Amino acid sequence: MLAEIITIGDEILTGNIVDSNSAFIAGRLTERGYWVRRITTVGDDVGEVEKAVREALQRKPGVIVTSGGLGPTHDDVTMLGVARALGVELKLCEECLERIKEFYRLLHSKGLIDDPELNEARRKMAYLPEGATPLENREGAAPGAFIEHDGTKVFVLPGMPREMKSMLVREVLPRLGTKTFVQRKLLAEMTDESKLAPILRATLERFRVRIHSSPKGFGKYIGIIIFGESEEEVERARAFMESMGVRFTER
Amino acid sequence: MLAEIITIGDEILTGNIVDSNSAFIAGRLTERGYWVRRITTVGDDVGEVEKAVREALQRKPGVIVTSGGLGPTHDDVTMLGVARALGVELKLCEECLERIKEFYRLLHSKGLIDDPELNEARRKMAYLPEGATPLENREGAAPGAFIEHDGTKVFVLPGMPREMKSMLVREVLPRLGTKTFVQRKLLAEMTDESKLAPILRATLERFRVRIHSSPKGFGKYIGIIIFGESEEEVERARAFMESMGVRFTER
Repeated sequence: MLAEIITIGDEILTGNIVDSNSAFIAGRLTERGYWVRRITTVGDDVGEVEKAVREALQRKPGVIVTSGGLGPTHDDVTMLGVARALGVELKLCEECLERIKEFYRLLHSKGLIDDPELNEARRKMAYLPEGATPLENREGAAPGAFIEHDGTKVFVLPGMPREMKSMLVREVLPRLGTKTFVQRKLLAEMTDESKLAPILRATLERFRVRIHSSPKGFGKYIGIIIFGESEEEVERARAFMESMGVRFTER
Repeated sequence: MLAEIITIGDEILTGNIVDSNSAFIAGRLTERGYWVRRITTVGDDVGEVEKAVREALQRKPGVIVTSGGLGPTHDDVTMLGVARALGVELKLCEECLERIKEFYRLLHSKGLIDDPELNEARRKMAYLPEGATPLENREGAAPGAFIEHDGTKVFVLPGMPREMKSMLVREVLPRLGTKTFVQRKLLAEMTDESKLAPILRATLERFRVRIHSSPKGFGKYIGIIIFGESEEEVERARAFMESMGVRFTER
């Protein structure tokens, strides 16, 4: 099953932050048996978000996860961009509005903000694409959204890492089924990658695995990750590589 | 001027590494006056690389920078993907082959590898898209490539951060002209972003700037970055926001 990740934020495109969210999401999806085929980052611009989501939908992945752009400011436009890509309107989610009210009342009671009342900017966060299921945000104000569209499960998550991680684990993963994928990380005792190339090619032809190799400088080892749908297939691929002369050490 | 970044690597798509290369590249391009409009990550797959480059070219940015997939192994397919997207063949770069030979001879003389001779995998790195200018790699074996295509400057860089950074600074930036862009990082004394939304909107309507805001939890401050083509315009925008009641502290 294929997946795509879309992260949204000018702060990524200007190099002001490193997008570690997509790596976290990619890791969790990979463990669940999804091949993440593409990660796209666009800015806080409704047209750009719409285009990125529309293009991803056209590639028909099983899952799309977006992260970022759900807050109250002018540049938080992800819900609108997603709605447009799906061809639906934004609609007030009453239950979300109640939660948002509650959230600001709580912050106010703790003395963290001056004003507990809803304003236009806070209210905006309660609008989700029509037909979406709200995803609970236990760490912040803005709810996420889940929409199924033409065979693709679309999850819209916040960008703050704490909020995104909590929502991914609690609200997204349980909706992705129970299949798992095996990754085996090894070190090959070899001084350079070029010696490994024909062996990797032969292994990939024989087994249902994917293999990633990365040189560890020009030292003694090359890092290898074998991915497969079962321990058995991964082990068969490893044993074959060994029979071709590769010496492995567990990482 | 718009720019796009394409990073290539299964290790990013599986969440095994965080793609910090794109943030580094984005930061340098932003300083040079480019708006990075999109960052795309695809896997070590020639079809995926071709598609990502072709789609980026269709959006007609001034610059495309790719990073990753230039090494000697089976999954290093970026040069071929770029060549296909450009509609040209790969061609042996004799000067690159000499450098690669020299590189492995040097590693061998230092006792870092067993075998100094060229093999098929090492030789592969000397093939660049027809018409490309090779970019010198002072930190590794694989050369980069520079191709102008229909108004877009395409730079193909390695994925190892040390090699990529050195090549970006020495070989790419000098080809991008001398325009610079101003970023001003500030802290606004405000307890939540929603209060800021109408002020940001008014500022963006009046001045030629872009503004990014990010909450620092629900503490006292909101981080603000104002981007513009001159110090003067950024300063005017800052002063206007102050006149609207925002209190700034320099970060």
